[in-house]
Amino acid sequence: MNYFSSDFKLGILGGGQLGKMLLTETRKFDIQTLVIDPSEEAPSRFGCNAFYRGSIVDYDTVYQFGQMVDVLTIEIENVNLDALDALEAEGKKVFPSPKTIRLIQNKGKQKDFYVKNNIPTSKHLRFVGLDDLRESLAKDEIEFPFVWKSATGGYDGNGVKICRSTLDLVNLPDVECIAEDMVPFKNELAVIVTRSESGEVKTYPVVEMEFHPEANQVEYVICPARIDEKVAQKAQEVALKVSEAFQHVGLLAVEMFQTEDDEILVNEVAPRPHNSGHYSIEASYTSQFENHIRAILNLPLGNTDSKVAGIMVNLVGEEGFNGQVVYENIEKIMAIDGVTPHIYGKRETRPFRKMGHVTIVNENMTEARRIAEEVKNSIRVISTQ
Amino acid sequence: MNYFSSDFKLGILGGGQLGKMLLTETRKFDIQTLVIDPSEEAPSRFGCNAFYRGSIVDYDTVYQFGQMVDVLTIEIENVNLDALDALEAEGKKVFPSPKTIRLIQNKGKQKDFYVKNNIPTSKHLRFVGLDDLRESLAKDEIEFPFVWKSATGGYDGNGVKICRSTLDLVNLPDVECIAEDMVPFKNELAVIVTRSESGEVKTYPVVEMEFHPEANQVEYVICPARIDEKVAQKAQEVALKVSEAFQHVGLLAVEMFQTEDDEILVNEVAPRPHNSGHYSIEASYTSQFENHIRAILNLPLGNTDSKVAGIMVNLVGEEGFNGQVVYENIEKIMAIDGVTPHIYGKRETRPFRKMGHVTIVNENMTEARRIAEEVKNSIRVISTQ
Repeated sequence: MNYFSSDFKLGILGGGQLGKMLLTETRKFDIQTLVIDPSEEAPSRFGCNAFYRGSIVDYDTVYQFGQMVDVLTIEIENVNLDALDALEAEGKKVFPSPKTIRLIQNKGKQKDFYVKNNIPTSKHLRFVGLDDLRESLAKDEIEFPFVWKSATGGYDGNGVKICRSTLDLVNLPDVECIAEDMVPFKNELAVIVTRSESGEVKTYPVVEMEFHPEANQVEYVICPARIDEKVAQKAQEVALKVSEAFQHVGLLAVEMFQTEDDEILVNEVAPRPHNSGHYSIEASYTSQFENHIRAILNLPLGNTDSKVAGIMVNLVGEEGFNGQVVYENIEKIMAIDGVTPHIYGKRETRPFRKMGHVTIVNENMTEARRIAEEVKNSIRVISTQ
Repeated sequence: MNYFSSDFKLGILGGGQLGKMLLTETRKFDIQTLVIDPSEEAPSRFGCNAFYRGSIVDYDTVYQFGQMVDVLTIEIENVNLDALDALEAEGKKVFPSPKTIRLIQNKGKQKDFYVKNNIPTSKHLRFVGLDDLRESLAKDEIEFPFVWKSATGGYDGNGVKICRSTLDLVNLPDVECIAEDMVPFKNELAVIVTRSESGEVKTYPVVEMEFHPEANQVEYVICPARIDEKVAQKAQEVALKVSEAFQHVGLLAVEMFQTEDDEILVNEVAPRPHNSGHYSIEASYTSQFENHIRAILNLPLGNTDSKVAGIMVNLVGEEGFNGQVVYENIEKIMAIDGVTPHIYGKRETRPFRKMGHVTIVNENMTEARRIAEEVKNSIRVISTQ
């Protein structure tokens, strides 16, 4: 297949920052790329060959868009899967497949899948709603504390709650959900696996999420993780097993816990470029975005090794600021060696909105970590006035 | 100044591959960028915020375009300088300045400038045309062999001829020209200097052009140059002296000869991103394109050091092929670790047309050089049928 400066067309469902970073790679290779997103302010509206506005959860819109392209991919899981099924049935290449997305979209099904495939994960029970969960509690089938998760729709901490007593159930939405055992863990790790249509597989190094000691929020994504080599190896093996089970095409980001006795438990996966792999743009021989494109087009996968240590800091909107964004002190951090800001192209900031990220690369991890803290303490996403 | 996701607008005159690679950086920073180029097939027509078609050598077009933006830059020297003068006089920021471009556009003026500024360069004489040159030859003011160069309009070996006898003058165009002493040299080197509006200056490492032993064509651009540390230091010093003399804002690529007795002679300069710096996208902490943007916006300059060894191979159209381009064996080279093709986005190939380049990065220079040769011997830019 001739992808380069040819009539071949790739379609991306969703036009957010992940799409924007994918477009950097399709431009580099001059692969014609079409994007569809409901927002006329979508970060991916530039850099593609054509941008369409429309709902990606609408059957007809997705079906029509799919017919315009040769290969279809996503940058967000919340898309119309029936339309993707229909397109796939007609022979259209859809990566990740709707089957994979459907499994992952529902956290209950995803957990069942791990159990069925002998993939280590925390114990869970599935419920159709709150009454069902309360009944199970009454029968002592589950015990406090546990982690409640909405089966669908949750992301970035939304749809997740630690329940320590029935008081914590009061304001939960009455939706399909799961209750997971609360497992004390030392580290939250992630491994991104890239797998091509032909089955070629490569894993990125294990990354570590470092949490803010009080706020319980990921502050830094660190590559490579500062963990024991044996644990890293185990995490890679588990990630490969998950990849093998899903038989996905494209990226699969596998989020894991390292428990206090060094077991690896799979938390959840994402079948697309992932926040935990943004460091790869500057630190890796081949970025996660390039390898996603390579994988779904069945091109040889690129080297996933790192050239240097990489740390990623998210740029999210400060509390108390709404409106036209200002990246306070961005020039200050740009003066530091190895610091690269990525600005997602959203004009309006809102509290906690993902507005960009900063990558810090350095030959030396300790130095990278020191600079990352300096970056974190300097830049603020605020608004004019 | 707030450049990021703001109303600020950067304008680029010219929409070729250099513009395309600049746009990767303006997208990363979400800096609004407008591009103008005469061709509707210009590689930079995607990735900008707005693309305009028009002649960049036309006064009114350039003047009008300049009024739409806050800062204006170029990706090709052949632009209407009178319009840039007018814009600059009105307070518009134009980098590089028309004064710098005017000096560089004329090779005679450029050489005079080196002499005036005590910058080492080969001896030259200027002529208004061929008769003038013949007269000088008759008076023995110049001697065979010498290098004839058209004063304006030449690029990539066009407008350059080695003259060994009057026979070589027969088909030369009757234009303003120079005759340079032919200096035997060991190496052709280049140093890219980035200089911001505030005067901050950084140099990239010295790169070496490796020529094909028979074809006398640059085959590889190699960073760092495999030369003596003292010679490298001298080349850096000369490049800085040139930069200081021009007081340019943005990049200045300084091409130099290393003579047989290890003198450094400046050949010519380009006040913009340059082919000899393409390796920097993958090998450097900050690419030449990002540093050009940083410099002209008076942002702090990025680290110009390399993470790994880098080699660049140009992809030019094979002789005998015209039409819809095909990158033969591109998948073969993409299977090699550290190999990244850049496809410029020109659908039609022609003999010797610059269609793309390939970067090879590796921790080990010897290995990088081996792979570069493998790449060079594998990929071919041909056409369908």
